Amino acid sequence: MPALLTKNAVPTTASWQERVKDKQHRILADVPPQFIHPELKFSDTEAQDVLDLPTFSQGNPARVMHFPEIYLKADELAITALKAEDIPPAIAAGTWTAVQVLDAFTHRAVMAHQLLHCCISFLYPQAREQAEALDAEFANTKRLVGPLHGVPLSVKDQCRIAGTETTCGYVANLGVWDEEDCLLVDILKKAGAVPFCKTTLSVGCMWGESINNIVGRANNPHNRAFTCGGSSGGEGALIGFHGSPLGVGSDLGGSIRTPSAYNGLHGLRPSSSRIPYYRVLNSMEGQEIIPSVVGPMAQSTKSLQLFVKTVVDGQPWLLDPKSPPIPWREKVVTYIKSRPLRLAFMHYDKHVLPQPPIRKALRELEALLKEAGHDIVPMFVDALNQKRADQFGSDVCTADADHDVQRTRDLSGEPKLPLLPAKGPGALPPQPMNLTESWAFAMDRMEYQASVLKAWQATAATTISGEPIDAYITCVNPSVAHIHGEFGKVRYKGYCATANVLDFSACTLPVTKMDVASNPPDQSETEDGFGKVIPSPQCDRDRWIRENYARNLKEYDGMPIVLQIVARRWEEEKVLAVSEVVEELLNEKGLGLSA
Amino acid sequence: MPALLTKNAVPTTASWQERVKDKQHRILADVPPQFIHPELKFSDTEAQDVLDLPTFSQGNPARVMHFPEIYLKADELAITALKAEDIPPAIAAGTWTAVQVLDAFTHRAVMAHQLLHCCISFLYPQAREQAEALDAEFANTKRLVGPLHGVPLSVKDQCRIAGTETTCGYVANLGVWDEEDCLLVDILKKAGAVPFCKTTLSVGCMWGESINNIVGRANNPHNRAFTCGGSSGGEGALIGFHGSPLGVGSDLGGSIRTPSAYNGLHGLRPSSSRIPYYRVLNSMEGQEIIPSVVGPMAQSTKSLQLFVKTVVDGQPWLLDPKSPPIPWREKVVTYIKSRPLRLAFMHYDKHVLPQPPIRKALRELEALLKEAGHDIVPMFVDALNQKRADQFGSDVCTADADHDVQRTRDLSGEPKLPLLPAKGPGALPPQPMNLTESWAFAMDRMEYQASVLKAWQATAATTISGEPIDAYITCVNPSVAHIHGEFGKVRYKGYCATANVLDFSACTLPVTKMDVASNPPDQSETEDGFGKVIPSPQCDRDRWIRENYARNLKEYDGMPIVLQIVARRWEEEKVLAVSEVVEELLNEKGLGLSA
Repeated sequence: MPALLTKNAVPTTASWQERVKDKQHRILADVPPQFIHPELKFSDTEAQDVLDLPTFSQGNPARVMHFPEIYLKADELAITALKAEDIPPAIAAGTWTAVQVLDAFTHRAVMAHQLLHCCISFLYPQAREQAEALDAEFANTKRLVGPLHGVPLSVKDQCRIAGTETTCGYVANLGVWDEEDCLLVDILKKAGAVPFCKTTLSVGCMWGESINNIVGRANNPHNRAFTCGGSSGGEGALIGFHGSPLGVGSDLGGSIRTPSAYNGLHGLRPSSSRIPYYRVLNSMEGQEIIPSVVGPMAQSTKSLQLFVKTVVDGQPWLLDPKSPPIPWREKVVTYIKSRPLRLAFMHYDKHVLPQPPIRKALRELEALLKEAGHDIVPMFVDALNQKRADQFGSDVCTADADHDVQRTRDLSGEPKLPLLPAKGPGALPPQPMNLTESWAFAMDRMEYQASVLKAWQATAATTISGEPIDAYITCVNPSVAHIHGEFGKVRYKGYCATANVLDFSACTLPVTKMDVASNPPDQSETEDGFGKVIPSPQCDRDRWIRENYARNLKEYDGMPIVLQIVARRWEEEKVLAVSEVVEELLNEKGLGLSA
Repeated sequence: MPALLTKNAVPTTASWQERVKDKQHRILADVPPQFIHPELKFSDTEAQDVLDLPTFSQGNPARVMHFPEIYLKADELAITALKAEDIPPAIAAGTWTAVQVLDAFTHRAVMAHQLLHCCISFLYPQAREQAEALDAEFANTKRLVGPLHGVPLSVKDQCRIAGTETTCGYVANLGVWDEEDCLLVDILKKAGAVPFCKTTLSVGCMWGESINNIVGRANNPHNRAFTCGGSSGGEGALIGFHGSPLGVGSDLGGSIRTPSAYNGLHGLRPSSSRIPYYRVLNSMEGQEIIPSVVGPMAQSTKSLQLFVKTVVDGQPWLLDPKSPPIPWREKVVTYIKSRPLRLAFMHYDKHVLPQPPIRKALRELEALLKEAGHDIVPMFVDALNQKRADQFGSDVCTADADHDVQRTRDLSGEPKLPLLPAKGPGALPPQPMNLTESWAFAMDRMEYQASVLKAWQATAATTISGEPIDAYITCVNPSVAHIHGEFGKVRYKGYCATANVLDFSACTLPVTKMDVASNPPDQSETEDGFGKVIPSPQCDRDRWIRENYARNLKEYDGMPIVLQIVARRWEEEKVLAVSEVVEELLNEKGLGLSA
């Protein structure tokens, strides 16, 4: 059993308020005091960009009045600037020890939590024990224990880790202590990763913002008046703040990709169970028609590749009944990188129009790729039918009419958060599907999947090589991160949910920042600057998103724009190889958010 | 569109009796008259072994009075003795043409149907057209079109084929003509296979005998007083009679393996969607917790391997949303054949005891394998917990309380067949599962799967190499084929359903025949001749099977004994490679049914 965390001081029979109060006292209880800066607080009235706070001493004198301290030392800044893939080589080279790396990220993660409310548990005692063991092992053998040796790992608070609580956002799970790691954490630890922190999420993973009754609302490091997205929003905010080099999120309707997009990150939604879900807690467990998946979030494509290869090399199918025995296929990566990419771009799904700067980013990337010699062909927008996918996504999330979530809330008596719309898309049905309806739903969904596969194959007729496209590129959502409370005004899951309904591999790619000055709000039926006529709004959400952009122009300026690359089912190697090629091209040109 | 079959003469609005009468007239309507022998009939009063009937002219003068005609000519006998894998080379060598092969198998299949009631459609016009095209292509290019060039293919009447009816055993589907092939047939046809016949099955694939209101009851070629099993019983009887070299069945609880066992055949239950199910008709469509799978049935392990490799090489995942992108792994086959096998034997699952001759066959095979140097380790009988798997299997088959089957019956007004027990295992629940119950069921099932995977891994501690077992070997059912009407007395799905619940790869292997003289009925608490004490019956079914064996000793004599080899999920290459090694060993020793 690992080193113990501070246990709950109130029993699980206490009121939900007492249990939450107890937990809030415990979140930082096991972190060394030197990493805690009591003056750092989330503030609604000072909702500015806090991204440069750790480096404050090197710049931005305007911040002096708020943050008079030098928070991170040069070593800590250097370590927390590392990407996941840079850490094991740096340890192998003797530049840093696993303990130094853990301490630096813990320090920065604590700051992130104080400023953004993004964490729910710090596992410092057990992480420290593990990092010390890694350092001892390395001192002894001069060899890394595995490809993630010493990489601090944050996980969404669904991943069971022995000796920790796993809340899934529910008060009912406070004071319930795991006795076993989930298989994913087990594999990652064997590869040398050091789980050090569990991140906040929406209640039961069922919402696109990260709000629960335990830590409240998590916030965006680019602007604290903005949401960090959800349901894996704690990961998004934490990694966005460089408080963790590698995180685990989960995705049923965009829950990895939305926070990745909102915080300027790389995130992968793998196809089902390529990354093992076994012993990861969730709502609506047993719902297998459109399954939730777990996947990585990080600061680079290479981090995602390292994560997936490491996990797959751990042969999760030997213990996870759902995991397909598909080894890491390096051949696919090599093949993709050896020739021009075959891509389609979807600028607009004919249902909800992305914000003007997002469309501009898509057009510019398309032009850049064409210029670099890649084969760009027309997208099968009609066959993809995102409106239909959006409906499937909503239907599966509300299949049991909130029965399971309500049952879990009732265990503690915690109140229902007013998140779901009372009517319209995403609203709860009056009663759960029955078994026959759920089977018909599964068949409809499969026919939809088959129709898209057919359309995908048909792109072979349009490419130079006569082979189908590798992937398509589109936005993650029609809006970038939005202001707190405006979820209902900007949320349209179509661009994300399509990959869930199809069970396709999809990753995010940060490309630029919102430049509102050169992207005025859309005027329907006028020319858009790229030779296309801007259509009239197709539905309420389409109209709301346009109005919302026009109303908050100034606030949106500078927020990250992140695109989405989508390949077919179980094509993780392919989608990540495409991402790598595109990312390198952006870096070469001095473009891209990570450049 | 292929050559047309004789269409229904009565409309789909006619009574179910009229529709059935019309269909019965049409079954042989499109077959050349020289293949039809009106004097051949199924007879309950002459329920003998009809296996040697085609070769009557060469033997058995006792049959003269019943079958005075020479049915198959020498060429036809030679062709129908071929296994699937022998046919393309024979065509390539110019020994036979695809048309000759088709004609010989059609002739023998018609005899099978007349004697056993095993078919439901003959596709001769379109099959002939295809065979002629193959011959023309070969004459022209001197190359085979694919690895199944000219192999006649029978399919369970669930597989949609353009220009045919696909009944799934329901009267309601008579007169409904398919416009497209299912993906599996499409891939097999592209590889050169010639679908020539559709076989009978139990109503909606929901029963372990093959009985429906269209062709009645199908019968066993080894003894027509015996069932051929189900639900893919038409395939079992037809291939058992050498009326087809290769067939497609489906398996939700043993529906490929039971008829393979009852008719002395090789059959493979692949893990889900390794062989594509897309556009294959079924009952309870959309039930995805424990899915039905399609797989091959044939006269040799090599036939099964050829089938699976051919289908997988067709990349079904490009069009079937459920199909995993796992290519044919020849490496696994090579590896298995390069070293001693690691196996466990399960002689008894501690719930229902197999008949004495089956246990003897298991012990003899175990001894033979040990002697040949293979590594035989103890079986994890308790962790496998077949009693639990049997319950899962029953629960999934009755999940909707017969709602879907009843709905389809009601479309035509056909009567319900009195197949299901009124109470006890397999009886219908009073109402369908609700959604929450079905999700809990899915989770229970996954935990069960995970517990077995863990036990499987733990066998590594018992093998010489320190690696887990490749497979385990057990019976297919505790009884061989039984007398018509005695299903309720001998049916225990545990040995089969375990592989379905676990979604494991499982194939059958014919090993010997029932020798009742040297295998007296079990006497509880006496020694069994192998140093084990025979346990008392553990449940009613256990007791019934023992009583049934004792009562029908004489009838059981000579019926085929077929065993089952089970590997893990998506390990088709492995289970078939093990089967090949064991089959070759049996053949070397002059043992085995196919020797």
